[in-house]
Parts: sequence; C-alpha cells; structure tokens
Amino acid sequence: MLLNLRDFETAAREKLDPVHADFIAGGARDEITVRENEAAFARLRLLPRVLRDTSRRALGVTLLGDRSAMPVLLSPTAFHKLAAPEGERATARAAAATGVIMIVSMASTVSVGDIAAAAPAAPRWFQLYLQPDPEITDALVRRAADAGCSALVVTVDSPVLGAGERNRRNGFHDLPPGMRCENLAGLRDGEPGHVRQIVMSPELTWEHIDRLRATTSLPVLLKGVLHPDDAREAVRRGVDGLLLSNHGGRQLDTVPATIDLLPGIAAAVAGRIPVVLDGGVRRGTDVVKALALGATAVGIGRPVMWALAEGGEKGVRRMLELLREEIDDALALCGATGPAALPPGLVYRREQP
Amino acid sequence: MLLNLRDFETAAREKLDPVHADFIAGGARDEITVRENEAAFARLRLLPRVLRDTSRRALGVTLLGDRSAMPVLLSPTAFHKLAAPEGERATARAAAATGVIMIVSMASTVSVGDIAAAAPAAPRWFQLYLQPDPEITDALVRRAADAGCSALVVTVDSPVLGAGERNRRNGFHDLPPGMRCENLAGLRDGEPGHVRQIVMSPELTWEHIDRLRATTSLPVLLKGVLHPDDAREAVRRGVDGLLLSNHGGRQLDTVPATIDLLPGIAAAVAGRIPVVLDGGVRRGTDVVKALALGATAVGIGRPVMWALAEGGEKGVRRMLELLREEIDDALALCGATGPAALPPGLVYRREQP
Amino acid sequence: MLLNLRDFETAAREKLDPVHADFIAGGARDEITVRENEAAFARLRLLPRVLRDTSRRALGVTLLGDRSAMPVLLSPTAFHKLAAPEGERATARAAAATGVIMIVSMASTVSVGDIAAAAPAAPRWFQLYLQPDPEITDALVRRAADAGCSALVVTVDSPVLGAGERNRRNGFHDLPPGMRCENLAGLRDGEPGHVRQIVMSPELTWEHIDRLRATTSLPVLLKGVLHPDDAREAVRRGVDGLLLSNHGGRQLDTVPATIDLLPGIAAAVAGRIPVVLDGGVRRGTDVVKALALGATAVGIGRPVMWALAEGGEKGVRRMLELLREEIDDALALCGATGPAALPPGLVYRREQP
Amino acid sequence: MLLNLRDFETAAREKLDPVHADFIAGGARDEITVRENEAAFARLRLLPRVLRDTSRRALGVTLLGDRSAMPVLLSPTAFHKLAAPEGERATARAAAATGVIMIVSMASTVSVGDIAAAAPAAPRWFQLYLQPDPEITDALVRRAADAGCSALVVTVDSPVLGAGERNRRNGFHDLPPGMRCENLAGLRDGEPGHVRQIVMSPELTWEHIDRLRATTSLPVLLKGVLHPDDAREAVRRGVDGLLLSNHGGRQLDTVPATIDLLPGIAAAVAGRIPVVLDGGVRRGTDVVKALALGATAVGIGRPVMWALAEGGEKGVRRMLELLREEIDDALALCGATGPAALPPGLVYRREQP
Repeated sequence: MLLNLRDFETAAREKLDPVHADFIAGGARDEITVRENEAAFARLRLLPRVLRDTSRRALGVTLLGDRSAMPVLLSPTAFHKLAAPEGERATARAAAATGVIMIVSMASTVSVGDIAAAAPAAPRWFQLYLQPDPEITDALVRRAADAGCSALVVTVDSPVLGAGERNRRNGFHDLPPGMRCENLAGLRDGEPGHVRQIVMSPELTWEHIDRLRATTSLPVLLKGVLHPDDAREAVRRGVDGLLLSNHGGRQLDTVPATIDLLPGIAAAVAGRIPVVLDGGVRRGTDVVKALALGATAVGIGRPVMWALAEGGEKGVRRMLELLREEIDDALALCGATGPAALPPGLVYRREQP
Repeated sequence: MLLNLRDFETAAREKLDPVHADFIAGGARDEITVRENEAAFARLRLLPRVLRDTSRRALGVTLLGDRSAMPVLLSPTAFHKLAAPEGERATARAAAATGVIMIVSMASTVSVGDIAAAAPAAPRWFQLYLQPDPEITDALVRRAADAGCSALVVTVDSPVLGAGERNRRNGFHDLPPGMRCENLAGLRDGEPGHVRQIVMSPELTWEHIDRLRATTSLPVLLKGVLHPDDAREAVRRGVDGLLLSNHGGRQLDTVPATIDLLPGIAAAVAGRIPVVLDGGVRRGTDVVKALALGATAVGIGRPVMWALAEGGEKGVRRMLELLREEIDDALALCGATGPAALPPGLVYRREQP
Repeated sequence: MLLNLRDFETAAREKLDPVHADFIAGGARDEITVRENEAAFARLRLLPRVLRDTSRRALGVTLLGDRSAMPVLLSPTAFHKLAAPEGERATARAAAATGVIMIVSMASTVSVGDIAAAAPAAPRWFQLYLQPDPEITDALVRRAADAGCSALVVTVDSPVLGAGERNRRNGFHDLPPGMRCENLAGLRDGEPGHVRQIVMSPELTWEHIDRLRATTSLPVLLKGVLHPDDAREAVRRGVDGLLLSNHGGRQLDTVPATIDLLPGIAAAVAGRIPVVLDGGVRRGTDVVKALALGATAVGIGRPVMWALAEGGEKGVRRMLELLREEIDDALALCGATGPAALPPGLVYRREQP
Repeated sequence: MLLNLRDFETAAREKLDPVHADFIAGGARDEITVRENEAAFARLRLLPRVLRDTSRRALGVTLLGDRSAMPVLLSPTAFHKLAAPEGERATARAAAATGVIMIVSMASTVSVGDIAAAAPAAPRWFQLYLQPDPEITDALVRRAADAGCSALVVTVDSPVLGAGERNRRNGFHDLPPGMRCENLAGLRDGEPGHVRQIVMSPELTWEHIDRLRATTSLPVLLKGVLHPDDAREAVRRGVDGLLLSNHGGRQLDTVPATIDLLPGIAAAVAGRIPVVLDGGVRRGTDVVKALALGATAVGIGRPVMWALAEGGEKGVRRMLELLREEIDDALALCGATGPAALPPGLVYRREQP
C-alpha cells in the first residue's frame, strides 16, 4: 500500500531491473552518508506550539521568481527512462500537475526541450556539470534557456565521479540500448549522447562560475557546497542560490548529512540567497525540520525515481500529493500556517542522557 | 504470566482483533515518538539513597481536590469496547476499586453518564476536544458535569488528526457494528455517534480556552502542551493544570519523549499548577523518575487497554495493582516514603562516555 | 574452552538447573542495570604508558588489615550449594588457595563456622542484613566473629527485596530440599533456616549502623551506598569501608553502573576509607579501570557461581587464576607494576564524535 | 569481486586455513579495540571544499628521507608465508612495484636479507622488539642495516604478549612445519628461528631506546606510544618518528582507536617528528582523515595479509592500487591536490543530537 514515500521504494523494487534499482538506491563506497542523511532527520525532534489558529495554511513558496505550490523541488536525477518508458516527460507532467519546480538533470534521457514540451507552462530549472570545453557548456546553457529553464543549478561536488560499488559489482556502466543522454546528443558532429560524454572536471574553480554567470542572464545556483566558507564565497561572488546537497551520498562517502550542515550554511548565507536542501527527505516532518533550520525549500531525488517506476506520471503525482499532505499536517501540528510562519525554536535538541 | 505492564500487551494480542491491537499499539507515521517515550525512560538512571526508614510509605496524591491512591491516573483512551464488551464501565470499576482517577475519553464507547453510574463514588475527569460549534462543546461539558466529572482535560495537540499508518494499512476507519461514540450521540437531532462527528479544529486559539473557562466552574487542564512558552501562557491565563502528553506518539511524529520535556515544563510552571505526565510509563521506576523531575502524577494509556483486553475489569485491577507494587518498591529502594518526599537529585545523568 | 570468566557462564549453563542458572544470571525487573554494569566497563578506554620497567609486578593489596594476593575479593553471593554439592566449602578452599578474601553471604548454604573450618587460615568477611530483631543480628555477628570473620559487610540497599521477574516466571521461591540458610538455623528455638527468615527491613537508618558498630569490634563496611552524600555520611559516622555495589542489578533497576559512579564516590570518600567495587567485573582490564578510578579492589559475584557450577573448588581456582593472569597482563601492558603504582590518567574518555 | 580492501578479507577466507585467518583477523581478549579502530574512522565526517582546481594531484610523501608514492606504508605484520608460499618476498615486490615503503617485521618468515634481495631498489624499514640480550638486538640491527633498511621501528607496547583468545581456542601456538622466523635463525649457535625466541621484555625503559640510538646511525621510530606524555618524551629524547599504533588491537584490549588519539599525539609532537598512524585504515577517506588530523602517512596491516592470501604479489599490488585510487579520489573530492595541501577543518565533528 502506498502510504508514504518509502512505500514507493518497495513497490519500485518489484518493477525495476535489480541493477537499476541498485543504481538508484546506492551511493559511494560504504554508503555511510546515504544512511546518515535519513538517520540525521530521524534524530531531530520537533517541539510544536499549540492553539495558534492554523486553519488557513498556505504551503507555497517563491524561489528566484518561480512559484512552487509547496516548499519542495524535484532535485535533478539522471536517467528517468530506467524507471518508466516516458522518462522525464512523465516526471515533468507530474511536477506541473502538482505545481512544483522540476530541476532537469543534464543527464536526462529526454532532452530538456522535449521535457519542456511535455509541460510547457510549468517552471523548470536545469542542472549542469561545467564542461572543460566552454563551447559545450555554452551550448548546453543555450538548450536549457531555449527550453524555458529559469535557473541553472551547477554541480560543484564532482571533480571526479563518486564510486558506486554496487554499480561496479552489478556491471552497470552504460544505459540500456535505446536510451541516451539526449542533452548531449549532437552537441558536436556525431556526438551520440553517451553518458561518458559528461566530463567531471577537477580543474574547475570559482572563476569558471564567474564566467558562466557572465555568459547567461539566468540565475545560477550551486549544488554541492557543504562548507560555510564556500557558502560565504558563493554569496560574495553573486551566486543566486545554493542547493545544499551531498549528492545523496553518491560522491564523497562519510560527508555529513545535509540537515546537520544546514544551520552552519544558513548562518553563513544569512538570508541573502535562498538555500534548498536535499538528502534524505522522506517525510513532511523532514521538510518542516529543514525549513525550521533555515532552508527555503527542500529537494527530493530517489523518491521521484521510485514513484516513476511504480506508476509513471501518476505515481509521481501520487507521491507528491502524499508529501504535500504530510507537510500540511506537520505544519498544522506544529502550530504553523506556512513555510514562512514557523514558530521559533521548532527544532529541539534534547540534553544528553 | 502477568508480572508487569508489558506482559499485558502480549496477553492482549492473543485476544484482540489484530486490527484493533494495531490501533492501540500504533502511532503516527514512523512511530519514532512511540518508541522514544519508552526509550527515554530507559535511558534515565536513578541514584537511590539508603538508611532513611521507609517503612511508613504512603502513595496517595491529591490532584485538584481529587484523591488518588497512588500518583497514577488513567489517561483518556478511546473505544474501550474494542477491548472488552463492557468497555469503559469495566475500566471505571477497576479504577474505583484501586482508588485512581479515571479520565474519561470524549470518544468513549460508553457514555460518561453510564460510566459514572458504574462507579458512582469514584472521582473522574472528562477529556474534551473543543468543537467548532460552541453549542456542541457546551452540551458535552454539561454531560460531563452532570456525570460528576470534576475536571475537564482539553486536548490541544490535535488541530488535525495524526496519521496512523497502521490503521490505514489495516483499513481501520470505523468502529465495528454496535459500537459508537456515546457521548456524541443525540447531541443534536439524529446525530448517530459516529467517530467522524468529533471534529479536530485547527482554528482553536487560547481565546477558546478562555471562553471554555468562562462557561464552566470545573477546573480546566490542557493536554498536549509541549513547549515551555505555551506552559507559561497556560499558567498566565489561569489554566488549572497540564497533562504533559505527546498523545502517546499518535499525533506529530518525532516529537520528543515527554519525560525529556518534563524538566523544561516543570521549570516553566514553577509549581503553580500540577503537571501530570503520560507517554511510555510502564514501570514503577518510570513513575518515580517522573515525580523526581517535577510531575505531580503520571497517566497511563495503552496498558489500560491491554489489561482490559486481557481480563476486563479484573485485568485492569490486576495491572494497576502490579503498578502500585512497583511504585511502592521503587520508593522504598530509592529511600523515599512517598511522592512528596523524594530525595533531591534522584535522577542521575551520567557523564558522556 | 575456559579462557575467560564469561566462558564459565557458558559451561555452567550446561550443568545447572535452568531455574537456578536464571536465578544467578538474572536481576531486577528489566535487568537494565545488569547489562549496564558490563556495558559501562566496555565503554571505558585505557590509555597505557610505555617503557616503564614493569618486570617486577606485585598484585597484592591489604584491606582493613587482611591481605589479598590480588585486588579481588569474592563478593557475597547466596546459595552456593545450588552450584556444587560442597557449596561454600569449595569456594572457601579455592579462595584460600588463591589467596583472596571471601565475603561469606549471610544466605550461605554452609554455615560460616563450617566455611571457616574448610579453610581455617584464610581471611574471610561476613555479609549481614541487619534484622529488625537486634538479638538476631547480635547472634549472627557472634557467629561470624566466632568463625574468624575479620570484617562485617552490611547490605544497605535492601529495604525491600528486589523483584527478580525471572524467578517469578520460573516459580523459584525456595531452596531445593536438603538446602537451607545455615547461618539462620537454630538462632532461636526451632528456626529451620528458611530463606524467608532473612528480613529485608525498610525501617533501617544510620542509627542502626551506629548501634552495630557499638556492639562489635569488627570493622564495618557498607554495601550498597551509591550516592556521594551517603558515602560522606558513612565516612562521617566512622564506617570502615564501602563496597560500592548495585547488588549486581538485583535490587533497584535502572540504577547506574557502579563503575560510572566510582569517580563520584571516590571523590566523596577522598581516600579516608577503602572502596571496593563490584558489578560487571569480567576482565583484568575491568579491574585496572576500577583501580584507576579510585577503587582499592574489586569484588566478583556471578563468575564465582559459574565457576563453582562448572568445576567446584577446582573451577573457582581456575577462574581466579585466569583473572589473576589477566590483571597481571593488563598492569604490564598499562605500564604499571601494581595496584598502587598506576600511572595517572589511565582511563581515557574520548571526546564526543 | 575485489573492489575495496575489505573484499580481500572475504576472498582470503576462502584460501586461508581458518586457524591462520583467525590469527590474522583476531585481537586481544574481547577485541573491542579491533572493532573500535574501524568504528572510529566511520564516525568521523569529512567536510569537503569545492572549486579549487584539483586536476594536478600528487600523492607522494617523503618520510625520513624515503620516498613513498602515496601516504601509505606497509605496517609490520608477521608470518607472510602463512598467506602465500613466497611470503615476504611477494609483499616486498608488490610494495616496490607500487612505490610504497615496507616495514619488515622482525617475525618475518623470509629473512630481511632475502626480502631485500627480492626488491633491492625499494625502501624498507625494519621492525624490532628490543631483546633482553643486547647482543641479540645488535645482531638484528646489523642484519637490518646490511639488508639496506633505512629506519628501525621499535615496538614498545609489548612488555608481555597480548592474549589472542582465538589463537588459544584454535590451538595456534607454532608456525607450520617448514616456516620459521628467519631473522632469528642462527643468531647464536644452533638457534633455530622459533617464534618463542622473540622475547617480550617488560623491563624495557627509555634508557634502552637511548642505548639503541647510540649504537646505530639509522633513524629510530617508536611503535606503540599512545599517551601524549610519552610522545613528548620521545621527542625530547631525540626519537625520529612515531608509528601511532595500538598493534591492531592485539595487545591491550579497550585501548582507544588510534584515530581518536591522533589529535592529542599530533599536538604533543607539534610537527617536530613525523607521525604514521595505523589501525583500521580501510578506505581512501580513512587516509585523508588521518592526514587531516596530523598524520604524515598511514600504515596498513591486515589488508596486506588478506591480499597476499588472495593473490600473492599480484594481490597485494591490486590492493595497493585500489587504495591509491581511493586516496586520489578522496583528495579530489575534498578539494585537495595532495597530502600536504589539505584544506583546514576538513574533519567535521557534528554537534550532539
């Protein structure tokens, strides 16, 4: 029975090729950070307020000019066709139907243009790995802009590719026949859209971010900044937002849970730019905890893939609707009418036993 | 063998419809708070005193004018007929026989009047969800007063209904045929006593509490205040007592254990009104810990339902008697002669390892 | 294979009536303190020193004038005949052979006089529950003194009997036919030596201790003082030593591990009287930890019963010899030549992770 | 599939005599320290930096004049012939091929001279137990020097032999026929190279270290210093380096994890001499954590034996190559170009929950 986000994982496991299910669920090395993301949320306690009239609740948030019906975005995840034949088209329609912003992965198996065509009116952002060849990067940015993406989310935690040992054990190195990274296809003559065309570049520096910002009018967010000093540097350089993410535990293992890092990042940013957090968000109470600790919204990743595998567009809609109900309930039960009206001190840390 | 309160759960599982057993045992969402309530008691350590002559122990306490033979109340729990055919009548007789105060649930399957008739001489309180229609509330208060209830316990942690996923999985939405919420039946023409007549009202505010207090001479306690600031507000507005409860983990999941919150609440209240704690009380040592940290008494919930299922009135009496013995032993072993004579510093917190 | 103290439990389980094995292993209520005693030792870390010439190690200690070949005593345990036909006689011979002090339990199944006769030259102490009838107490003290006991260990943590739920489940209420509490037999006309003759007296106070000390020239230790204020009171009143014990977790459950309490007790006593610790000692490193935190020696309880069940006198000797080797090794590896020459700061507490 | 260091243990278990596999894996007594070494690394969190151009990474370090291609040494481990017929010859060739320093164990089953002959150009150090007979020690030092060893690593945590209960249970007391401690053979007339010729000497003091240093021009490191005061003493006396090691949990059980001790030792040493850490290093992130907390390099022990058992020289090469890749990845993902260029504050300690 599909009562919560984790139920979709169980259901998806029945439908997915086990190799692909592992690709989705797995993380780097010992997967300590994968587990820690959820465990850190479970450790946090909410201390609700009572008798505050929460009958008129409103869940919407505005992020860099885009409206989301709830403080949730779809974090970029690769290869949606692994989960459902329609791939990112189905995801985009579900996001549009629910009113949430989808961050299209550079490694999508439907081109960003075709994703846009599937849900033309909905807001969408584009996730980008800066490529060593700036012309490739420029071409990708143009494709994203042409597809109506209203922000760029640049991944900065991937100088090299994180080591997913499950994939190595399973021999999962390539997309199945008939799927490819459509955003990369045809960027240059004869480029076929192989996953390996996405280059992870260790040489990237802050200057590359400056350069990107100089070549586009789109707002630029950084995905993968974890250290408060780097968050301050991002603000100083005019970056428009942060996606506080440890890549779902898929890059450097033993990185802290993002929710544990959020207070430090929020203090460093001091409200000057929005901070979206992803990593382990599975419950409405997780969302409220992130908001209470300084996030503007949260991103969800794996649950989108599971829901897509479970029921395509309808599955993702159902999953998002469940999450919306959980957030709505959690707000009411905390004594809050919406993301911007949380009582102070909502996250409680008990004294040591 | 029935040697302690938890044994009654095992025994009750043999007799209850599994759907109802789950309804009683379960809590909201991931049930983190359900587990945390008991775990928090288990973490606390008692540091007893010796050689203090505890031969003349007296366990009784007075709460808002009512006498209880031990520092234990029956917290309000719904639907006792699920556990035994006589329902709340059996519970009331057992409470009366043991000399403890029963808090009748608004969602009882025997009317408060009939409960009173089953044990006329015993003290009883009435738990109330304030209803959006004040006339309904007023009618309920009248029924409670007419039935000799000597205090009202207003639940304030339920702007919406907590999500019990076990009930959803089990399809438990309604009472079985022949049972209804008797206190709601016939309040208005043709009202049949459906569970759904109990409205969880997010619009409630402190003013509704003021209004209730203005319309009744009964003392009013609030059930579900968890934040010290709300406890201070309750005292400021003249509320007569607090039932420090997280609803047994059935409302907002990941709320702290009540025993962890007690020191903060006790400090906020500063002895001006009594604080009764429920949530996870299973042992005499749990009761002593709560008293030592500032509670006037404790409430027990699920064990009452288990004992009722195990042996009806006799089961509840047996369970209460076991608890009384445990409290009595624990007091002696701590060097205390009663709830009001605990040595200071009884709860010990070890240094971190 | 019998390589350490815990191996004796496994071996004993093969030979003991399961009801008696449970009696020995069990504790009060949920047995949280039973487990905590061992867990607390396992949490502590030793930070050894090197290159200190530990070739001439000496393990002996002197306690109230008695010499022990190592810093270990046999804590009082009841009913040795449950473990071996010869009962306490076998234990006494093993203790004498190893050179350690045996604390004879008041509830021994061999009389203290016959125990003395089994190992006449060895030092022995006597454990005593003060009885409501002072003449009974006086008679017991006389018996102990006549049997050459050189100290009295008065148990003060037992105003009531701790609730061993294993025993209740197993129906273990009485000694098997042919066994009795020999120290109680014939104290008054016709007294048969039933366990129930031992009265746990809640009315005991410090004045009863003063009275005992006035009626005997034997040194008096208190067993069961856990609070530093009570330890200070004991010193103030001239008590000769403390046996820091939580009764192996058999009295009040959720009491702290004794090793966690030792620093506070040692600070309160400030070296004016010896402190012997029992509870969870299973390894040579446990002994060194207790010594490093302020104990003069440790007591062992359950391992004596297991070893007795495994191999009678020979089993106890073997067990004590293993423990001696472990202590000797641990001292060398810590850079110490003996109990009185431990380097400072030997117990290390790591910073929180 | 051999994807990480732990995989080699699984593979080795298939090939090793179970008694020898236990000898390699086991530790002293309850093996608390064995487990703690790995657990302590797993508790630590890395807080990476981004956008720092890590394209030109260099992993090499120089240690007392010797070059290692990565910040990893082979810690001394005994009896390589238990794992592969060629024994330490195979290990030496693999170390040479990978460019890392091998610390030859005094208890090697190939003589240090023959090890040198197997990989003449590679740097090697020699581990030494100081012997009660100084002539034996001198002879061993000469053999090491003659074999081109460029440093001596003196084990100081072994005044007695740690108690490996697995070995006792398995009856593992001697090397199989045909294997012996070749470094000890023929030191004096007729000495056959028995393990028991290696004497663990409790009488050792700092003066013995001084004496050794006076008799050799080789740099001397101490292996097994754990206390900061002893580290300061080592520096004061002119020792050339420390191998911060708890002997893989094989000597005193319940000693802290070395990685938990590293900050204290690094502070005591204050950069005046190099500190190499071993104990529980299994991942590239473990290496980075050790470097970030003050180590110059790490040592690995058991993984060498497992890899040797799995695939001889080739297995060890493969294992070292995997570790090199992990370190290289971890550095890039942390925003570092090499061991000497780690960003400050890389190891993050989360606030208590």
